[in-house]
Amino acid sequence: MEEFKKKLRIGVIGGARPDNTSYDLALKIGRLIAEKGAVLVCGGLSGIMEASAKGAKQAGGTTVGILPSSSRHDANPHIDIAIATGLGYARNSLVALNADVLIAVDGQYGTLTEIAYGIIYGKKVVGLGTWEIDGIIAAGSPEEAVNLALRS
Amino acid sequence: MEEFKKKLRIGVIGGARPDNTSYDLALKIGRLIAEKGAVLVCGGLSGIMEASAKGAKQAGGTTVGILPSSSRHDANPHIDIAIATGLGYARNSLVALNADVLIAVDGQYGTLTEIAYGIIYGKKVVGLGTWEIDGIIAAGSPEEAVNLALRS
Amino acid sequence: MEEFKKKLRIGVIGGARPDNTSYDLALKIGRLIAEKGAVLVCGGLSGIMEASAKGAKQAGGTTVGILPSSSRHDANPHIDIAIATGLGYARNSLVALNADVLIAVDGQYGTLTEIAYGIIYGKKVVGLGTWEIDGIIAAGSPEEAVNLALRS
Amino acid sequence: MEEFKKKLRIGVIGGARPDNTSYDLALKIGRLIAEKGAVLVCGGLSGIMEASAKGAKQAGGTTVGILPSSSRHDANPHIDIAIATGLGYARNSLVALNADVLIAVDGQYGTLTEIAYGIIYGKKVVGLGTWEIDGIIAAGSPEEAVNLALRS
Repeated sequence: MEEFKKKLRIGVIGGARPDNTSYDLALKIGRLIAEKGAVLVCGGLSGIMEASAKGAKQAGGTTVGILPSSSRHDANPHIDIAIATGLGYARNSLVALNADVLIAVDGQYGTLTEIAYGIIYGKKVVGLGTWEIDGIIAAGSPEEAVNLALRS
Repeated sequence: MEEFKKKLRIGVIGGARPDNTSYDLALKIGRLIAEKGAVLVCGGLSGIMEASAKGAKQAGGTTVGILPSSSRHDANPHIDIAIATGLGYARNSLVALNADVLIAVDGQYGTLTEIAYGIIYGKKVVGLGTWEIDGIIAAGSPEEAVNLALRS
Repeated sequence: MEEFKKKLRIGVIGGARPDNTSYDLALKIGRLIAEKGAVLVCGGLSGIMEASAKGAKQAGGTTVGILPSSSRHDANPHIDIAIATGLGYARNSLVALNADVLIAVDGQYGTLTEIAYGIIYGKKVVGLGTWEIDGIIAAGSPEEAVNLALRS
Repeated sequence: MEEFKKKLRIGVIGGARPDNTSYDLALKIGRLIAEKGAVLVCGGLSGIMEASAKGAKQAGGTTVGILPSSSRHDANPHIDIAIATGLGYARNSLVALNADVLIAVDGQYGTLTEIAYGIIYGKKVVGLGTWEIDGIIAAGSPEEAVNLALRS
């Protein structure tokens, strides 16, 4: 664990019910994050959160899940370090705070709060097939998304 | 106060440093909210929050300000009911929760979190010169914005 | 509403399932708070929260309820100004922040968090038949409790 | 990290400015927690939080710090996994939520909120030289405190 705190934390944010294409993109992103030696931070639940954590674990990485509920046992099975908040959607602020850089994939309005919090907190936000708004750096592939994130 | 809880609560959200045009639009919206007998809810600080509260008070209305800081004395002078949260930007969730309908004017990324929270919480979100994203109902004037809000 | 913000806010904290004696003490305290021209702040739910709000309304006062849930409609019927937080028990911090002084009646561990938060935030905490710990000023009756609170 | 999520999480709570005796007790408790294979959870700052984390690291353990501020870089140097919340004292609820069992050492009113939250959330709370209130299981030494915690 000594090295954990020196690692870059990359947050992956996105919807709980993505289509298969977005799920696969997030899986790939998670794998690349782990291969590059970064830590994956996410919301700990299903969909994009699960896919990215699954990918990171497939590549031997470490995963953090910041949960809206009061029990760390609500995390998906690919989360190593589950953090319970009991805050409901207000926990979205904590997802953004605990990443050094964010990658948004797909996503609805919860993702939009996390994108906006990320920008408020001065984090770089990379987007892949997600909201197109000022302040997001668009990527065309998982590789490009992770490379852009690593340049933070 | 008996009647307070029966009144519609209209949230006005927007930036802390608007230009004069947006400030005046928010002032007008606040006035109309009060004239229609609704309660104004906002973030309690400067800019659009202050303008809308000032307008509401000019028309004899009631204003609620949900503050990010720990002291209710941080509210602008046009807030009747100041609520301290000590939550920083996580308080944006509470602004959306405490309105029945939201009107966004101008605004940056804090406003974007409040728009997104509003949609997550099932509130109608009306926009005037603000973010143009799916889920916002665009209005062309303060009158139209308030009329759309009242139809909730 | 002009005068609302100038009024002292007295928080009444206590258990959700008090015995009849404690319920009656809280009712009396609420009545005295209103008679003295102060605003009652509480957690907005049942038990001591309901009793104190009921008493305040019987005497023509104004009541604020800071709720753990996401809907202001969860407040007891004696609350004028219901504030939804969606924060669960973390809202206990907000109850303490939004009172100028606190009176604890009866109560279990939720009340204990509010007492401790009150002291952390520099508020006077008066107690009547509640936790006996350093930092609480003990009162022997509703009258004494409210008089001690008013001397803040 | 695979095994992290299977480990018992023991929270150590206590004051930011303890005397030397309490600091040494917390250091010893941290060491024992690591030796027993449990994870240390704390508030991430100074005093008892720092002592317990330092002890855990001396024995090769893993430490989690749940911070009140918005930056994970505010954690003391013995924290492996720092979690920023930006919630101020409302983060005390999250310290209690993220431990399976709590050990309180010394401490003032912040510690008292964490003890009370622990009991509300159904966690066993062991105390060593701390608040003496119903619901805390008193221990006479660091060894006894950790043994009682492990029996959860």
